[in-house]
Amino acid sequence: MATLKDDERLDYLLSEEDMRIIQSPSIFAFSLDAVLLAKFAYVPIKKGNILDLCSGNGVIPLLLSRRSYANITGVEIQDRLYDMAMRNISINQLDEQLSMVRGDLKDMPEVLGHGRYDVVTCNPPYFKTPGKDEKNLNQYQAIARHEIYCTLEDVVKSCAKLVRPGGKVALVHRPGRLVDIISLFRKYRLEPKRIQFVYSKQGREANTLLIEGTRDGKPDLKILNPLYVYDNNGNYTDELHEILYGKGGK
Amino acid sequence: MATLKDDERLDYLLSEEDMRIIQSPSIFAFSLDAVLLAKFAYVPIKKGNILDLCSGNGVIPLLLSRRSYANITGVEIQDRLYDMAMRNISINQLDEQLSMVRGDLKDMPEVLGHGRYDVVTCNPPYFKTPGKDEKNLNQYQAIARHEIYCTLEDVVKSCAKLVRPGGKVALVHRPGRLVDIISLFRKYRLEPKRIQFVYSKQGREANTLLIEGTRDGKPDLKILNPLYVYDNNGNYTDELHEILYGKGGK
Repeated sequence: MATLKDDERLDYLLSEEDMRIIQSPSIFAFSLDAVLLAKFAYVPIKKGNILDLCSGNGVIPLLLSRRSYANITGVEIQDRLYDMAMRNISINQLDEQLSMVRGDLKDMPEVLGHGRYDVVTCNPPYFKTPGKDEKNLNQYQAIARHEIYCTLEDVVKSCAKLVRPGGKVALVHRPGRLVDIISLFRKYRLEPKRIQFVYSKQGREANTLLIEGTRDGKPDLKILNPLYVYDNNGNYTDELHEILYGKGGK
Repeated sequence: MATLKDDERLDYLLSEEDMRIIQSPSIFAFSLDAVLLAKFAYVPIKKGNILDLCSGNGVIPLLLSRRSYANITGVEIQDRLYDMAMRNISINQLDEQLSMVRGDLKDMPEVLGHGRYDVVTCNPPYFKTPGKDEKNLNQYQAIARHEIYCTLEDVVKSCAKLVRPGGKVALVHRPGRLVDIISLFRKYRLEPKRIQFVYSKQGREANTLLIEGTRDGKPDLKILNPLYVYDNNGNYTDELHEILYGKGGK
């Protein structure tokens, strides 16, 4: 059994009662956005190669392993999170299907090869620079949330190089960056195919954006049904409950 | 009283019991999309200049006149529809506030002047070429629905030239063209600020897109709450009922 460090906890990973995940309130804990992306992204079921950039503690590879038999590789730049992800693979006995690479996503096309992946997913840093409310973030959190080691353009460019022609790139981000994301997708020949907006509740503006594009695809965009997180009583909607606690399977 | 021609009818304009509109099932009848755009677009209330391109029978200028005291100009390329729009202004005694120009929107920056308008609206043709289901469209309908006289790029370019710096351009279109619209908005320095997707009912993909951009604006996009047309029983939702039949006012 992998050892827990500092304030790390061994949590259940959603409904997957046989899956556990090491995380830490002070260093890295997975977000709803990661769960939504792991549900939204197309994945090949029986075989193939999936890459997840900005993997953190490996939550997206872990979740994708419930949907696919493909090989899944995670990339994380921070030693401390890479180490956590490695132990997460180990404690879930997924060493045969999942692997981690420690490094900078900008180097990955050279390290891993161009056009090798059927699917690339990424839950990147959302914010350009730390805001006034976030000056007290520690280094781990600052790097995960802000464009310190990589800009949005770095992310899209790397995804586009890593995915094969006809393969898919799926990101989660903030709706305020939609224009930048679409512009960068077109610039790097990822044609947006599916977008879903996530709303905390009815009547509000969207607060999360899920987008999937196809390398060298033809224009044919669908805007999926909106996804609401909470109902008017403040409880999870049925749809979100299903995403969080429903039974997966492949 | 203006004379009705051919199969034209004199209909009530939504809830505006004192407003009437001439239309024709075979030539031009206004769509829900026009009504949604007239509700979605920002308008200055007390004064200013508003321009509506691809005006058809003038439905958007008529509807906007209920929300604003600004001068409103419509532009229509088809003689037959221009004539219908002129009579619609006349029968509603709006000659002082509303006017029509017959001509090609591509010529309007030269005809009307660059950067003169606070707001430009447009419900343009949606389709690149007539599809197989639409070969029997007559000339009026084909021109209104297809990019025969103007492409999407012509529309965006003209809007961008006609609106003043800081002014707003609002379009209604199909979600499948979102990527093109956003790319063209950026190309012509219209920064997208507000997008609303319209869904026929819950659980479906969006079928209509409303977008507003600001000339030379700073990036700050909001994705508004989704708008549903029908509830699960097939009746108009409360929100749509309010848009269609609610009391306006300025």
